[in-house]
Amino acid sequence: MKTTPKSLRLHIALFGRTNVGKSSFLNLITGQDVSIVSEEAGTTTDVVEKTMELLPIGPVVFIDTAGLDDETVLGGKRVEKTEKVFDRADVILLICDGDQIGKFEEKVSALAKEKRIPVLRVRNKSDLSDVSDSPEISCNSTDPSSRERVLSALKTRLLDVCPNEFISPPPLVGDLVRPGGVAMLIVPIDLQAPKGRLILPQVSTIRDALDNDAASLVVKEREYTQMLDQLKTPPDIVICDSQVVLKMVGDTPNEIPCTTFSILFARLKGDLPRLAAGAATIDQLKDGDKVLIAESCSHHAAEDDIGRVKIPRWLRQYTGCNLEIDVYAGRDFPDNLSEYSLVVQCGGCMHNRREILSRIEKCEAAGVPITNYGLCISQTQGVLKRVLSPFPAALDAFERTL
Amino acid sequence: MKTTPKSLRLHIALFGRTNVGKSSFLNLITGQDVSIVSEEAGTTTDVVEKTMELLPIGPVVFIDTAGLDDETVLGGKRVEKTEKVFDRADVILLICDGDQIGKFEEKVSALAKEKRIPVLRVRNKSDLSDVSDSPEISCNSTDPSSRERVLSALKTRLLDVCPNEFISPPPLVGDLVRPGGVAMLIVPIDLQAPKGRLILPQVSTIRDALDNDAASLVVKEREYTQMLDQLKTPPDIVICDSQVVLKMVGDTPNEIPCTTFSILFARLKGDLPRLAAGAATIDQLKDGDKVLIAESCSHHAAEDDIGRVKIPRWLRQYTGCNLEIDVYAGRDFPDNLSEYSLVVQCGGCMHNRREILSRIEKCEAAGVPITNYGLCISQTQGVLKRVLSPFPAALDAFERTL
Repeated sequence: MKTTPKSLRLHIALFGRTNVGKSSFLNLITGQDVSIVSEEAGTTTDVVEKTMELLPIGPVVFIDTAGLDDETVLGGKRVEKTEKVFDRADVILLICDGDQIGKFEEKVSALAKEKRIPVLRVRNKSDLSDVSDSPEISCNSTDPSSRERVLSALKTRLLDVCPNEFISPPPLVGDLVRPGGVAMLIVPIDLQAPKGRLILPQVSTIRDALDNDAASLVVKEREYTQMLDQLKTPPDIVICDSQVVLKMVGDTPNEIPCTTFSILFARLKGDLPRLAAGAATIDQLKDGDKVLIAESCSHHAAEDDIGRVKIPRWLRQYTGCNLEIDVYAGRDFPDNLSEYSLVVQCGGCMHNRREILSRIEKCEAAGVPITNYGLCISQTQGVLKRVLSPFPAALDAFERTL
Repeated sequence: MKTTPKSLRLHIALFGRTNVGKSSFLNLITGQDVSIVSEEAGTTTDVVEKTMELLPIGPVVFIDTAGLDDETVLGGKRVEKTEKVFDRADVILLICDGDQIGKFEEKVSALAKEKRIPVLRVRNKSDLSDVSDSPEISCNSTDPSSRERVLSALKTRLLDVCPNEFISPPPLVGDLVRPGGVAMLIVPIDLQAPKGRLILPQVSTIRDALDNDAASLVVKEREYTQMLDQLKTPPDIVICDSQVVLKMVGDTPNEIPCTTFSILFARLKGDLPRLAAGAATIDQLKDGDKVLIAESCSHHAAEDDIGRVKIPRWLRQYTGCNLEIDVYAGRDFPDNLSEYSLVVQCGGCMHNRREILSRIEKCEAAGVPITNYGLCISQTQGVLKRVLSPFPAALDAFERTL
């Protein structure tokens, strides 16, 4: 397994009074059924580090300060070692005994503030029944059955506070085209395309190819096969707008990888494997199921609006089911997520990666699958498997969920 | 000679009291040394039409209402014929006897206002010495020596008021690439290129090719020749950023037409033959000549600013002359244009075609050649003739001026 250099991992330091449950919390989080990459002795005998993959953030390292008891932090002999932990930490988890806040907790918070390190408070051993809506993470670290819920809460809060560089996106298209290679872009020009312009996902893709020493061949769907014939070597990747995906797949020889702009941006802005798994659940929808179409912006609805008209129509046609479909436009999800069988999120041009990842976490916490417009369109046209093929992890997640 | 259907010509109706000099004004404007395309009898015996090319606007038709005297216009028997002229006119020239404004002039102005036709007032037979700054056109139509000045004033004022469709631009790139053909775009990615974007001229060119059923192959200068080899048929046109024009010309086989984005936009926004003729005058600059660099926007000057640093350096290197170079940033030209030997205008991304054409007219009126940044760069690099070759009229204007 590939290991990530420690400097690229999100460093999460656990602080808490002696016997508050730091180690049991860490054991709960890094339970046997997650991929613990390594467990190595700390750089000092007082600190234990545990690394793991905490998706969607990626590789993290927990710094367990069990060896540094509260007296140390408050100014004992080993203050230097504590400071070193503060120097390395990107985020601090402050494990508390329920609501108990005292001199120790205040000192840690003050030090963190001084060094501009975000602090997440974990209420351990608490009665969980009345704090489920708290922005803090609450848990009983001795109860293994709570693991998924605590992990989801931790991920959601980490997404909120971790430094930008740790939610930096995968490449847009640079890993799908060789230096000197060609990305072929199929760009339909319809009435809604603004005069004299290209839309931003198309421009960003051309630019990302250039940044990776590759070229883009930009063509309308009608001239696509003609241009394909113009190239001596096939393009490394063909990318089309979702609205012409059926024609593109039909026109593209099997040996040429192809995908859609929507899928590139689902990967860039979100978590492609989880959105692909969500798309697979479309096949499991039943009569009477509720589907939430989540739009991030409240644009003026066009006559043949993608979210309000086309996607509901395609979903009903493809499933043959009598679905109840709500369209919700706004910056936040509605409160009652759990009543839905599927959430279909828009492309999220108004959102950054952090926000889309948060929405995915919220759906996971509510036990609701989530996918997005582009994946939904390709699935209801019966070609999602083909256009996911350049992304093995997403294809795998899709096939395992089907 | 190709004739333009009348409906595509700018219709300019001349009104004025009997004997005010309508016909002599028209004769002055359409003097023997301009290309009068045709002189045909009007559709009625009362109206004479004269067509001519009035660059940069293009084909115009003058409707001389000499047959409709002032009594007619004011409500005589032939009022219907007068109304028909108003129905056809895009612009009205109201010829007045000096400053004399009376019932007739007021009636014409009121009718024009009602029909939303712009009116340009021409002060004929006036003493010209004190009205040269007037926004109106003043002339002595019996003095043939004033023709150039009056023509220039007329053009400038027509550019201000004529309807948008008469200053509609030529195609951006659509006429340089066949349907199904390829335009190759060389896009350097330097530090100033905004992250994740392409600049607007590049995007507009890709879009215009798509609108004309052609494809664009977008590539950095480093991968250009490699991509050229990838195509089974050579591209119809190669277009590069001016900053890599020397490398592009060196890498492009002679049989492949090539140009720069600057030249495409000089044509789109201005008058390419006149700007090309202006570039040819760079070769005639002498020690002590003053050159005006005209920037349309007052952006923060970069370290190696194109207008303030690079173009002055290249001009001095190429000419070997001790030039005095002024940089003027703003929406208007400075007042003292005539002291300059050359004006070098920026690409004009802040200006529309009407504004750039007005600037060209102002330079012509002052007897000063004008070119733009992109043409100037290609000329000082010694490759302007090559990159003008896709535009025969501009190449001809360039070579005749050299």
